[in-house]
Amino acid sequence: MGKSRLEAFSDGVIAIIITIMVLELKIPHGEGVDVLIPLVPVFFSYVLSFIYLGIYWNNHHHMLHTLRTVTGPMLWANLHLLFWLSLIPFATGWMGENHFAALPSALYGVVLFMAAVAYFILQRLIIASQGHDSILKKAVADDWKGKLSPLIYATAVVLAFWVEWFSLALYVLVAIIWLVPDRRIEKVLGSHGV
Amino acid sequence: MGKSRLEAFSDGVIAIIITIMVLELKIPHGEGVDVLIPLVPVFFSYVLSFIYLGIYWNNHHHMLHTLRTVTGPMLWANLHLLFWLSLIPFATGWMGENHFAALPSALYGVVLFMAAVAYFILQRLIIASQGHDSILKKAVADDWKGKLSPLIYATAVVLAFWVEWFSLALYVLVAIIWLVPDRRIEKVLGSHGV
Amino acid sequence: MGKSRLEAFSDGVIAIIITIMVLELKIPHGEGVDVLIPLVPVFFSYVLSFIYLGIYWNNHHHMLHTLRTVTGPMLWANLHLLFWLSLIPFATGWMGENHFAALPSALYGVVLFMAAVAYFILQRLIIASQGHDSILKKAVADDWKGKLSPLIYATAVVLAFWVEWFSLALYVLVAIIWLVPDRRIEKVLGSHGV
Amino acid sequence: MGKSRLEAFSDGVIAIIITIMVLELKIPHGEGVDVLIPLVPVFFSYVLSFIYLGIYWNNHHHMLHTLRTVTGPMLWANLHLLFWLSLIPFATGWMGENHFAALPSALYGVVLFMAAVAYFILQRLIIASQGHDSILKKAVADDWKGKLSPLIYATAVVLAFWVEWFSLALYVLVAIIWLVPDRRIEKVLGSHGV
Repeated sequence: MGKSRLEAFSDGVIAIIITIMVLELKIPHGEGVDVLIPLVPVFFSYVLSFIYLGIYWNNHHHMLHTLRTVTGPMLWANLHLLFWLSLIPFATGWMGENHFAALPSALYGVVLFMAAVAYFILQRLIIASQGHDSILKKAVADDWKGKLSPLIYATAVVLAFWVEWFSLALYVLVAIIWLVPDRRIEKVLGSHGV
Repeated sequence: MGKSRLEAFSDGVIAIIITIMVLELKIPHGEGVDVLIPLVPVFFSYVLSFIYLGIYWNNHHHMLHTLRTVTGPMLWANLHLLFWLSLIPFATGWMGENHFAALPSALYGVVLFMAAVAYFILQRLIIASQGHDSILKKAVADDWKGKLSPLIYATAVVLAFWVEWFSLALYVLVAIIWLVPDRRIEKVLGSHGV
Repeated sequence: MGKSRLEAFSDGVIAIIITIMVLELKIPHGEGVDVLIPLVPVFFSYVLSFIYLGIYWNNHHHMLHTLRTVTGPMLWANLHLLFWLSLIPFATGWMGENHFAALPSALYGVVLFMAAVAYFILQRLIIASQGHDSILKKAVADDWKGKLSPLIYATAVVLAFWVEWFSLALYVLVAIIWLVPDRRIEKVLGSHGV
Repeated sequence: MGKSRLEAFSDGVIAIIITIMVLELKIPHGEGVDVLIPLVPVFFSYVLSFIYLGIYWNNHHHMLHTLRTVTGPMLWANLHLLFWLSLIPFATGWMGENHFAALPSALYGVVLFMAAVAYFILQRLIIASQGHDSILKKAVADDWKGKLSPLIYATAVVLAFWVEWFSLALYVLVAIIWLVPDRRIEKVLGSHGV
């Protein structure tokens, strides 16, 4: 399978996920400010998940950039990643509607954690296929963000049951960490003239 | 019609089907574990159908890989396949919400069976267009999976009314059969230097 | 604007329309045959509209095949066509849920009629841009289907208020007319070596 | 990141937004004219937003046409634009269901205003990346539409609370302004032989 079709399919699924998520922002009955108030946490969780999906879309593209041929296991590892991403709208909506309560916040963290694991598996498969001088391997050698994120998610999942809102703060923190420009892969790619 | 537009359209439809299916995982009211419990069978049926659609996307790509020009009948055979795939979210949701009861489980099998038939028709049309030395014909000569699956679906549809959960076990079995790496088409393609 | 982006955008919108239409097939509560019965007309109207959208997708592709450059008016004529197609899920669902009653059946015909008008406008714009030896002009010279369809839609809209089910029969008739292989454009294209 | 993937992703998101918006046109219960009457303002706001999204899709394409390489900030500025566009279905539905009441009409204007701001930021980033002889810079030098629109949106937001329906008239006015053929960018591009 060519890389372009895998990319196009992944882009399509991520574009749909990012867009149907807004359907959870149910149109309220009534025209006053009062009907908008309950939507504020739903809206905020939508913004957060929109950013996360943007980050995944961005990272996914950079990772595939170093790929030449797609194998069967890679294809399924990619579908596995898309599966967890597809659960983000559900986790987002549940967390937002319950004002970042313990269990919904923990579930949101579980979905993010599993997506990170799925991303890691796909990364390993691509690196393994590229052999010793894998470009991706060099690019992610000092990938502290990729290693730190799952740890923070796991912490957030556990803490959700102790301190309200704390896990939310951790999810926001991870999003900020990733939003800060990261030129790792571009740098390595650049020095290889890709 | 060029192959690429048929591929892109099919990918788009499959990507949308796989993603809107998650909308059946309705966000529950309440923040406790108790509201998640009823969702477990819905979630499980979602996972199963996600895998089935992944298998179809994968097989569809491999089949089209051997295709050169798209004829009118092929185009409609492809739309016929997409039609049955488009019913999977409905069948999945109904089966999940009714905890794999007889009739919903049977209907799920009917949709899978009809999708398999539609896939078979498309395959025959492509093989017929390629003449005697059809690459696809050689590739599917020992396609025991493609021949076995509809038989299992038909069995599952009938058994659904006798033994609860048995048809579900059969659907899981077929999914596992297909998930096991299958290099038939790749092998034949490889030996032809495609 | 290049033709490919217009094609890809149109394909995307049609793929989404054809797929979200299935969301009107609401999952019923209960697991018996009795809950499926009321869905039969909804299902039948879904099948009909699926075929119509397939016909539009097919014809749209053939028409664009003869196009070289996209002008501003063409782009808006295309969006105009997509607008009417986007109303098909609404008209389909309303007609199905009301068992092909007078007004819903008439509205379905109005949407089909307007889509046909929009298609005709787009066709005229493309022909006008191609000058005297327009390939598309020759291809549609004996386009009796394209001329007959709007007449039948208009008849169906009016008759819907007199004879129940008659307009539905006319919609089925038009779908069958279009499903019969039509090689007009391919033939002319073929003789021009395109 | 190549321009084509950014374009394809943006097109996908806009295609989905424009299509799911029609889901707010809820299928009414009953088959008479009386059940359609309440849908008239919802339908009208749908038409308006469909045109706005068409305008954005069109302008977005023209702007990217002058782009060569996509930087990280551009990618996020583009996602920022898609974020505000993704809120249009919500704002459209709320405005339509409340018959263009004050607050919903104002919110619609806020979303349009923020989308215009996001578009402006993306435009500045592209111009900055192109240096002194930026083609886009010349193309938008006399962009009175782009400068006037946010002013009208802001006026509409404020006026919504004083004069009913007036803000709606302003939104219609902006849509008409943009629908009038605009050959600015094409002209400049043409004189550069692009």
